[in-house]
Amino acid sequence: MIYTYQSLFEFCRNIFLAVGCNNTQAESATKVLLSADLRGIDSHGIARLQGYVRLWEVKRVFPGNEPCVIYETPSTAVVDGSSALGLNVAPYAMKIAIQKAIQVGTGWVSVQNSSHFGIAGYHAMLALPEDMIGIAMTNASPLVAPTFSKERLLGTNPIAMAIPAGEEPAFVADFATTTASNGKLELLQRKGENTPEGWLQDKHGISSTDAHELKKGGALLPLGGHREGGSHKGYMLGSMVDILSALLSGANYGPWVPPFPAYVPVPDNLPGKGIGHFFGAMRIDAFRPASDFKTHMDAWIRRFRSSESANGQQVVIPGDPERIYENERMKNGIPIDNELVKTLEALAHQFSVSFPEPIS
Amino acid sequence: MIYTYQSLFEFCRNIFLAVGCNNTQAESATKVLLSADLRGIDSHGIARLQGYVRLWEVKRVFPGNEPCVIYETPSTAVVDGSSALGLNVAPYAMKIAIQKAIQVGTGWVSVQNSSHFGIAGYHAMLALPEDMIGIAMTNASPLVAPTFSKERLLGTNPIAMAIPAGEEPAFVADFATTTASNGKLELLQRKGENTPEGWLQDKHGISSTDAHELKKGGALLPLGGHREGGSHKGYMLGSMVDILSALLSGANYGPWVPPFPAYVPVPDNLPGKGIGHFFGAMRIDAFRPASDFKTHMDAWIRRFRSSESANGQQVVIPGDPERIYENERMKNGIPIDNELVKTLEALAHQFSVSFPEPIS
Repeated sequence: MIYTYQSLFEFCRNIFLAVGCNNTQAESATKVLLSADLRGIDSHGIARLQGYVRLWEVKRVFPGNEPCVIYETPSTAVVDGSSALGLNVAPYAMKIAIQKAIQVGTGWVSVQNSSHFGIAGYHAMLALPEDMIGIAMTNASPLVAPTFSKERLLGTNPIAMAIPAGEEPAFVADFATTTASNGKLELLQRKGENTPEGWLQDKHGISSTDAHELKKGGALLPLGGHREGGSHKGYMLGSMVDILSALLSGANYGPWVPPFPAYVPVPDNLPGKGIGHFFGAMRIDAFRPASDFKTHMDAWIRRFRSSESANGQQVVIPGDPERIYENERMKNGIPIDNELVKTLEALAHQFSVSFPEPIS
Repeated sequence: MIYTYQSLFEFCRNIFLAVGCNNTQAESATKVLLSADLRGIDSHGIARLQGYVRLWEVKRVFPGNEPCVIYETPSTAVVDGSSALGLNVAPYAMKIAIQKAIQVGTGWVSVQNSSHFGIAGYHAMLALPEDMIGIAMTNASPLVAPTFSKERLLGTNPIAMAIPAGEEPAFVADFATTTASNGKLELLQRKGENTPEGWLQDKHGISSTDAHELKKGGALLPLGGHREGGSHKGYMLGSMVDILSALLSGANYGPWVPPFPAYVPVPDNLPGKGIGHFFGAMRIDAFRPASDFKTHMDAWIRRFRSSESANGQQVVIPGDPERIYENERMKNGIPIDNELVKTLEALAHQFSVSFPEPIS
C-alpha cells in the first residue's frame, strides 16, 4: 500500500498528540520520524511508531517533557533529555550545537536521558542551511559483540556527517558501525534469506549466516566482520560513539543501554540515565571562506562520481541514494507493507485517530 | 638486530639536524617518528626516515621551516605547515587545539601544506595529560579505491582518538580506514604470503589476495572489503577524513594528494597545498567533572575487558597492544631487520653521522 507523506504526517502527528506531545513536539517528532521513510530507511521510520507508544505506556518515555541544558561552556553543552522522545531531544541538542558554532566556530553537545532519535542523518543535516558541517551519533541497546567477544556489549551506534557543497547536493554519510544494520537484517528475516558472511555470529561466538541468529542469542558483528577483515576497527568506532554519547553526558553505556522494545526489561543498577547522543556543528567559515570550501567540495564530488567503475556501477556519493528516495517518495508516496498497516490501524483504533486511505 | 631506544634516538636526531632541523625540531621529529617503533607500528617509524630525507633532497619538505596559524576563531584554527616535516607540524597543530580547548571547551585545527606525520595516535595522545579527548587524522596519497571504483582516489586516511581513564590505561584507538593498512600489506609482501579476502583489488577492480597487486596497479579496499561487507562505510570514513583534513584547510585531496616516495612525480594542477591533517581536543570537564568521567571509563574498560571470550582470546581495549609493545621495547630495545639496518647505515654514511651498535 502507498500513502502520501501528508496523510502519514497527519496520522503520526495525531498519535504523538495522543501520547502527550504538544503541537510543536508532535510536529517535530513526526518530521524526524518520517524523514526515515522518505529517505528509504524504512526500519527507522513509521515502523517504529508503535515502539514509541509502548515506551510511553510503560512510562519509559514522557513525550510532553522538554529537554534542557544542564552544563555548558562556550563550545560545549550537556543536555538532559528529560526522558522525552529522542526524536525531539536530538533537534533541540543539535540546535544548541549550531548556536555555539555561530558564537565560537564549533559546538559540541552530549546528551543523557534520551531515547531513540530516528535517523542520525536528519539531525546532522540541520547544520547544512547554516553552512556548517553537522555530526550526529547515538548509542543504542547492545546487539553487537566486540571482536573476540561472545557477549553483546555495543549497539549498532551510527555515525552521521553532513557536509555542504556548492552546486552539487550535500555529502551526507549516515551509517551503523556494524557490517550491516539491524534494519537490513530484519529485511532478510522477513524474506527468509541468509545473510552474507561477516554480519552475524551465533550465541557461541561462531560466525553464522542465519538471519534469525540474533534472536537466538547471537550478535551483530562490528564493521569488518572478523579480525582479519578489520572488525576491531568497527569495534573501535562503535566504542567511540558509545563513549562520546554516554560517558561524556552521564547516559547509560555498553551493555547497560536500555532496550527499545518496551517488553524487554531494563537492566538493574544502571550506571547512567536513558540513552546517549552526541552532536557537533562546525562553521565552514571558521576555517576558510564557505564559497572556497564549496567550490572544492563540488570538485571532490565530481571527481569521485566520475571515477572509472570496477563493475559497471557508478561510484556513489554519500547521501545520493537517500536524496533520490526522498524526491521520489515525496512525489509518489511512501510504501508500507501490509503487516505494518495493520499495526498502524490498531494504533489508530487505540487512540480513536483516523488512519489514512492509501493512494494505491 | 636490536637497538636501544636511546641509541636510535641519537641517530635519528642527527639525521634530522643534517637535513636542516634546529635542535628542538630534530628532537621533536625523532620523538614522534620513534613512537611508532616503540608502539609496534614498525611501518611508520624509523623505516620511513630515508623517505623523509629523500623528500628533503628533492625540496618537497623543508625541515627547518616553522608552521604557523593562518586563520582562527575561538574554537578553530587553520595551520599552514609551511612544507615542514609533518612530524613537527602535527604536534604544533595539536597544541593549538589543546590551547583552544582550555579557553572555550574544545579546539579543532585543520592543517594544509604538511607532509606525513608519523602515527596519528601519538598526536591524539598529547591531549591525555590535559584530561582531554584527543583526535587526530590525516589524508594520504591515493592507494584506496572507493566501493565500485577501479581507480585509487583515497589514502588509507587514519583516525585516532585518545580518551583518558582513571586507574585503567587510556583508551587509544588508531586505525586506517581500510581493511588493512599498507604496513600490514608490506609485511605479507616480504613474507611472500597472500592476503585474506577483502584487503585488495587488482587493476581491473577484481578482488585479489595477491599481496603484490597494489604495485601492479591495484588498490587497497575500504574497511568492509566489499559492498556486502559494508565497504561503503569504510569509503565514507576515508572520505570524511579527507574532507576534514584537506577541504577545510586548503590542502590537496582525493587523487591529488602528493605521494610519500620522492621519486613518484607530484600530480599536475594541484587543487591545494601539501597534505592535510585534522586535530581535535575536547576538555572532559567542559562536559562533566573529569573524575566522574574517569570512574565510568574505568567501569567501561573493565566490563569490556572481562567480556566472555568467543575463541579463547580476551577482548582487547584499544591501545592495550601498543602500550605493551612500548613498555617492552623501551626496556629491551627495538628490533630492526637487516635490510633496514643497511638503509640506515647508508644514511649515516651520507651525512657522516655514526650509526649505533646493536645490543643483540
